[in-house]
Amino acid sequence: MATEKLRISAVTITPVAFRDPPLLNSVGVHEPYALRAVVEVHTDGGLTGLGETYADARHLERLRAVAADIVGLDVYATEELHRRVGEIISRVGGVGGSGLTGMVTTSSTVDRVQSPFEVALLDIQGQACGRPVSDLLGGAVRGAVPFSAYLFYKWAAHPGAEPDEWGAALDPAGVVAQARRMVDAYGFTAIKLKGGVLPPEEEIEAVRALRAEFPGHPLRLDPNAAWSVETSIEVGRALDGVLEYLEDPTPGIEGMAAVAREVSMPLATNMCVVAFDELHPSVAVDAVQVILSDHHYWGGLRRSKLLSGICDTFGMGLSMHSNSHLGISLAAMTHLAAATPNLTYACDTHWPWKTEDVIEPGVLEFEDGSVAVPTTPGLGVTLDRDALAALHEQYLTCGLRNRDDTGYMRTIHPTYRATNPRW
Amino acid sequence: MATEKLRISAVTITPVAFRDPPLLNSVGVHEPYALRAVVEVHTDGGLTGLGETYADARHLERLRAVAADIVGLDVYATEELHRRVGEIISRVGGVGGSGLTGMVTTSSTVDRVQSPFEVALLDIQGQACGRPVSDLLGGAVRGAVPFSAYLFYKWAAHPGAEPDEWGAALDPAGVVAQARRMVDAYGFTAIKLKGGVLPPEEEIEAVRALRAEFPGHPLRLDPNAAWSVETSIEVGRALDGVLEYLEDPTPGIEGMAAVAREVSMPLATNMCVVAFDELHPSVAVDAVQVILSDHHYWGGLRRSKLLSGICDTFGMGLSMHSNSHLGISLAAMTHLAAATPNLTYACDTHWPWKTEDVIEPGVLEFEDGSVAVPTTPGLGVTLDRDALAALHEQYLTCGLRNRDDTGYMRTIHPTYRATNPRW
Ligand SMILES: [Mg+2]
Ligand SMILES: [Mg+2]
Repeated sequence: MATEKLRISAVTITPVAFRDPPLLNSVGVHEPYALRAVVEVHTDGGLTGLGETYADARHLERLRAVAADIVGLDVYATEELHRRVGEIISRVGGVGGSGLTGMVTTSSTVDRVQSPFEVALLDIQGQACGRPVSDLLGGAVRGAVPFSAYLFYKWAAHPGAEPDEWGAALDPAGVVAQARRMVDAYGFTAIKLKGGVLPPEEEIEAVRALRAEFPGHPLRLDPNAAWSVETSIEVGRALDGVLEYLEDPTPGIEGMAAVAREVSMPLATNMCVVAFDELHPSVAVDAVQVILSDHHYWGGLRRSKLLSGICDTFGMGLSMHSNSHLGISLAAMTHLAAATPNLTYACDTHWPWKTEDVIEPGVLEFEDGSVAVPTTPGLGVTLDRDALAALHEQYLTCGLRNRDDTGYMRTIHPTYRATNPRW
Repeated sequence: MATEKLRISAVTITPVAFRDPPLLNSVGVHEPYALRAVVEVHTDGGLTGLGETYADARHLERLRAVAADIVGLDVYATEELHRRVGEIISRVGGVGGSGLTGMVTTSSTVDRVQSPFEVALLDIQGQACGRPVSDLLGGAVRGAVPFSAYLFYKWAAHPGAEPDEWGAALDPAGVVAQARRMVDAYGFTAIKLKGGVLPPEEEIEAVRALRAEFPGHPLRLDPNAAWSVETSIEVGRALDGVLEYLEDPTPGIEGMAAVAREVSMPLATNMCVVAFDELHPSVAVDAVQVILSDHHYWGGLRRSKLLSGICDTFGMGLSMHSNSHLGISLAAMTHLAAATPNLTYACDTHWPWKTEDVIEPGVLEFEDGSVAVPTTPGLGVTLDRDALAALHEQYLTCGLRNRDDTGYMRTIHPTYRATNPRW
C-alpha cells in the first residue's frame, strides 16, 4: 500500500526586527535593529514547521515567490524543493542582496532562499515521525553543542540612546572586560573577537590580553578581510601559537592561499568560500583550512551536512558561522551541529547580544557554554505569537528594510568608507 | 516530551549462494555461485530492516562483530553506527578481502562493513514513519530508475554443465545477439559491455557492432583496467564518438589521468576511486570524469548521497556500479538513484543474469529498462523465508567461501594468470 503524502497547504512569511547593540565591524556598525524573516510552513495534516532567514527586501521578495509556488509539495520532497527554488530564482532573478552585511555576496541565491523552507520541512518531518531534527540528520553524536563567546568592539550606545548594559569596548581592557562578563555568565569555553575595526596592532594587543586573561580558551580573530596579504602575514606571525584559527584576514581565494602559505595557524572563512562552486577553486590552492558552515546560505541542514562531508573528505576543518539570529535558527544550528561529528570547533552565535526573540523561552539555555540538543519532535521550539506580533510591529515601525552597516555608520561619521582591505 | 527511541534488539546475518553464469572478466570467470549476505536488523518494536552485502569469509566475520556490538542502538543513530563500526574494525582488523573479485580492494573497510546495517536502519526508519526510503534521502525526483543492459563475454556453460539459456558470447556477433535478446526482453535504453577479456581490437569491433545494431543506445566499455595507458589511448581514439564513457581502461589515478588527457570521452571508474580518501588525489589531477557510486562500498545510502554531492560540487558525473546482487540491494539502489538528481546515467545491474532471489517477487519489475521506485514504507521488499533458507542451504553445500574468479579460471585453464594491464 503506497504511503500517504503530507502536503504543504500554505506558507506564512513574517519579517521581524529585534534590537541590536552598536557592534562594530570592518564595514561599519550594527544598526539599532536586526532584521529576520520567520517562515511558517503549514500542512494539510495540521502540522506547522518553522524556518528563519534574512529579511532584506529583495530576499523577502524571493521568499514570497517560493512560498506561492510550493503549496502542494510533499514535506519529504526536499530535492524537488531545491529544483523548484532554482527554477523560481532563474525566473525572478538571482543576483544581489545578502542579508549578511548589505554587501552583495557570492553565496548561492538558490541555497540562501531554499534554506528556511528546508529547515521548516525537516521540522515537520520530525514532528510527523516523533523525532528531533538531529535524528533526521543521522542522530546526535553529542548531547550539547559548545558555542564560542563572540566579542565585538562596540560603542556604549547607539547615537542618542542610553548606554546598553555592556557598555563600550574599544581597547584591550574593554575587550577583556566584555569577555570576562560573557564567559562568567554563559560559561563559554572558546572566544572569538570580531576584528577589522581598529589598526591591526591594537587588535593584536587585544588578543594578547585575552590570552593572558584566559590562558585555556581557544581564541579566534576575524577581521572580515580588512587586511592586505602582507598585513595578514604580519598579524599571523605576531599571533603564532596564540590563535586557534585566523578567520578571513584578507579577501579572496588567492589572497587567502598566499597568507596560508606563510602563517602557522589554520585560516578559516565565511567570506571567500560561501557556496559549493567555490569549493573546488579553494581546494585546488589550499586557500582555507577551516570552513565556517552556515545553513542560512549553504542551502539548509542537509546541504550543510554535505558541506561537512566535503570538508571531511578534502581535509578541511569545520566550524559554524553566525549572523545575528533568533531562536528558530539557534535550534536548527544546534540540531545540525549535534549530528555533525567533524564539527569539532565551538560554533559562533550572536547570543547574548540578542535580547528579544520570537520563540517561547526555556528550551535553548546556555550551560557551560553549550546548548543542550532538544529531544522533542522537530526543531523543538514553539512560536510565541505575542512576541512574533510585537517584533513584526517593530519591523513595520523601525523603517529598516535592508541591512546596511556602512550606511548607518555614515549617518554618524559622514566621511566613513567601507574599504577592504583597509590596512 | 522527549521522543521514544526505537532500539536494535538483534541482528541476523545469513550467507546465501545463488547460481551465476560463466561471465568472463579481466581476472577470470564467475564461479557457478555468487555469494551474498542478508542482514536482518530486528527492533524492540517488532520492525525488521533488511540489508545485503558481500559474503566473503573475512567480511562475514566483520559483519558478525558489528552485529554483536550494535544491539541497543537507536535506528536513527547512523552517525553513531559509523563511529562504532570504525572502532570495531580498528579492533578486528581492516585490511584484506573485498567480495568484489577476490582481490584486495582500496575501498574503505569501515564503509563496506557499515553499508548493510545503514540500509537496514533506513528500511526500519521508513517503516516506522510510513515512508519509502527514497523519502528519507530527499524524495524521489524520478518515478522509475533506468538501468543499463550489462553484456558479458561468456561461455555457453560452466564446465561439465548444460549450456545456460544465454549460450556463448565470444565474438561481436555473439555480443550483439546477447544485447538484442536483453534489450528486447527488458527494454534497456543503455548498454555496457564488460571487456578486458579479448584483445582490444576484438572488443573495439564488438562495440562497433553494437553501435551499428543499436544506433540510439548510449554505449559503455569496461575492461577493468586490463590495458596500459598507451593501449587505453589507442582504444579511446578508435572509439571516439562511439562511447558514452570509457570505464577503467587502465589502473590507478595517475594512469587514468594520463589517458583522460588524450581521449575525448569521459573516463568512469569503480576501481581507482572507491573510497572518500581517493577523491582528493583524483580531483587534483582530473583522473576521472564520472564516478560509479556503489552503496555497498561507499558506506550505505546517505554516504552515497554525500558522494553524489561531491561529484556535483567538483564537476564530475555520477553513474552507479553493480556487483552481482539480489533484490534487497536492487531496492536500495533504486531508492538511492531515485533521490539523486545528478545520477543522470542509467545504472548498472546484474539483472537478468541473476535467476534466484531471497525476496518475494513482483515488486522490482523492469519496464522499458527501468524499475519503478517502490512507494510502500521502507525499502518496499519482503524476505521470502523459503527462498532464503534454500539459498542459505546452497551456500552451505556449494563449498564457496570467497569470490575467486581467477582461481576458478585456473581450475579450467591451469596456466591462466590475472595480469593487469594485460594489453
Ligand atoms: Mg567571519
Ligand atoms: Mg567497472
